[in-house]
Amino acid sequence: MFGRNWDKKERILIGLMSGTSCDGIDAALVRINGSGADSAIKLEAFQELNFSSSVQKLIKECQGPEAGSNRKLTLLDSYIGELFAHAALALCKKAGIEPATVDLIGSHGQTLYHHPRIEKFPGFSVNGTLQVGNPALIAERTGITVVSDFRSRDMAVGGQGAPLAAYLDYVLYHNVSRSRLVLNIGGIANVTVLPSKADISGVWAFDTGPGNCLVDLAVSRISGGKKTYDRDGVMAMSGKTSQVMLKMLMEHPFLAVKPPKSADKDIFGAAFLDKITQALPPLNGADLISTLTEFTVKSIAVAIMEFALQRERCEEIIISGGGAHNPAIVEGLKTALPKLMLSPADAYSIPAKAKEAVLMAVLAHQSACGLSGNVPSATGARKGVVLGSITPGINFFADEEGDKDASS
Amino acid sequence: MFGRNWDKKERILIGLMSGTSCDGIDAALVRINGSGADSAIKLEAFQELNFSSSVQKLIKECQGPEAGSNRKLTLLDSYIGELFAHAALALCKKAGIEPATVDLIGSHGQTLYHHPRIEKFPGFSVNGTLQVGNPALIAERTGITVVSDFRSRDMAVGGQGAPLAAYLDYVLYHNVSRSRLVLNIGGIANVTVLPSKADISGVWAFDTGPGNCLVDLAVSRISGGKKTYDRDGVMAMSGKTSQVMLKMLMEHPFLAVKPPKSADKDIFGAAFLDKITQALPPLNGADLISTLTEFTVKSIAVAIMEFALQRERCEEIIISGGGAHNPAIVEGLKTALPKLMLSPADAYSIPAKAKEAVLMAVLAHQSACGLSGNVPSATGARKGVVLGSITPGINFFADEEGDKDASS
Repeated sequence: MFGRNWDKKERILIGLMSGTSCDGIDAALVRINGSGADSAIKLEAFQELNFSSSVQKLIKECQGPEAGSNRKLTLLDSYIGELFAHAALALCKKAGIEPATVDLIGSHGQTLYHHPRIEKFPGFSVNGTLQVGNPALIAERTGITVVSDFRSRDMAVGGQGAPLAAYLDYVLYHNVSRSRLVLNIGGIANVTVLPSKADISGVWAFDTGPGNCLVDLAVSRISGGKKTYDRDGVMAMSGKTSQVMLKMLMEHPFLAVKPPKSADKDIFGAAFLDKITQALPPLNGADLISTLTEFTVKSIAVAIMEFALQRERCEEIIISGGGAHNPAIVEGLKTALPKLMLSPADAYSIPAKAKEAVLMAVLAHQSACGLSGNVPSATGARKGVVLGSITPGINFFADEEGDKDASS
Repeated sequence: MFGRNWDKKERILIGLMSGTSCDGIDAALVRINGSGADSAIKLEAFQELNFSSSVQKLIKECQGPEAGSNRKLTLLDSYIGELFAHAALALCKKAGIEPATVDLIGSHGQTLYHHPRIEKFPGFSVNGTLQVGNPALIAERTGITVVSDFRSRDMAVGGQGAPLAAYLDYVLYHNVSRSRLVLNIGGIANVTVLPSKADISGVWAFDTGPGNCLVDLAVSRISGGKKTYDRDGVMAMSGKTSQVMLKMLMEHPFLAVKPPKSADKDIFGAAFLDKITQALPPLNGADLISTLTEFTVKSIAVAIMEFALQRERCEEIIISGGGAHNPAIVEGLKTALPKLMLSPADAYSIPAKAKEAVLMAVLAHQSACGLSGNVPSATGARKGVVLGSITPGINFFADEEGDKDASS
């Protein structure tokens, strides 16, 4: 399968990811030895290709339930495909390797919309997810076979299509003598629970609520678009939290839902922020950022205490994602969860910032091996399934010359 | 490749197609012997699963450049996926075969938008195409591996993503002693030119303009939605053509463009019809349908004379698609092109109504064999490419036991 040399001991893959915050494309070059839960995963190179503000604007205009039109979406799908292909080729150049030596690309694409809730239609009830970044363009421009659209198959078997990180968390961080939590703070924050005694079927995970999405949105508004995030938590730490607003924020219904659950960034978006800020006397910029940052911290801490620690005694949280670099969040979590040791993912084999891109490479590798990549106890799926669709590159149909030699 | 038994002599495939007119899903069960241009293709079973009027409405609301929203599109993508899966399973039942014996499904999906024109974006110029009918759902519900999204890869190498029918036209109708034209009258009409002396690289094709789309639209308006097409051309034949309106219709700029060219149904849609009818005194229903039918006939005839017969002396037109069953169109074409013999496709091995669904099975088969399915001289692509993305079914990763036995 997957053409020449797939059966070799070690494969080279590229993972491509663009998060809901639309910062840019993360590209990771990964070497994988073996398959399944016992894979050895080595990050060879990593690069972030930042989106220009005009590209960010293009994408943000197309996010959310009512955004988009066929024309915008169709062209954006192709355009993001070209950018993803460019990111893969730029990574090869940086790493000094020929694209032809790469076995496979795993591409998440750019999420425009995620709708895990089931809706009734005539004869069938459906949900769905929408990522752009046309794989035909990535495969054609790079010559490399692409696996993409990882979330749909999980949703086809009753899953929420998220979180997908649970699989990589298990492979990287499972420890037989110590139960761990893995916390990723991207646009949305999610937690993976890794019980020491469990194999992968015992892993579970859920979104806790907002990661950086609300803070990023407010920073962008306050700065008139000049800043996109609260660098080093400076604004948060210079302001004062409004307990009244925090209480109102904590009443968001998502927080009370029991896992498994996944959150679209949209439910913690502009409409929600408007509703809250308009219901209360205005805060100055720093106080608003401080309050929203505290909301992120508190919603994570409460979810961990109520949903994770009640079921599994853990001693350590491994923390990754953009929020792991925000001292206001990290210190807030230390205060809120004093009995847990907080370890940055950077202390482990894969730096936090590269994790999501590495995940895409690892999921593509699972699919190419015919192995499931979703963790049913995390997504709520009825079963493990081989994720994604495969778009052939030059190497996909190449003759398996090694095999021929061996049999002749 | 494609799991167990792909290397057997004969494979069973299902082709699934839903045209721009949104009538329903055509499903064809096909047996293919050999590969490439010398394939023997046998239609084993065919079934049309008509869309209910509520489903038609759902789809039509999402067609065209400005239609759609992320929410509508995402859910429709999944819903059409479920309907396509249902159509495949219903076909298996009708044919009395187990889905597990089907090697592959080729699924076109439902086109919502097709944008072959190149648009400038920062750093890259792109075009694109949008079909819904999520393949993850089709593969999961049927257990059969699916090839889908056939148009994107052709567009990635400079093609218009259409017409795709040229490949099947060559396989079915190429004749070494007689040059032929193949005319398909669906929503849009297209012509494939099959020179007797040429191999597949000498085949060319192009859209001529409206097929049934304008007539269907006008019939639906006149009947207040009660009728969707002019059955047997009755309305057209009871009316009188307005030469003034016909002259204005024939001035549509698409008609003057030289091939290769492909038309989105949208350019012969409501906006165009409104513009024409509002510029002239109103016609009664029958006269309007007569005039629009004559426009279809004349635009096809002129395109054949100007673009096809100028380059290749042909004696026969093989005619297929819904329009082939409209006597007003067929008789009109006989009058307009008196020197050509008109043969219904039904007289050949594949009935006209099954042709597009069979095409999807044949293109999927080409892709599974690692062979190109686009005809560059028809689509304008720079080269032939393996079309589509592959979504694994149960059979995709099955052990190739035959191979193991052979080598042991």
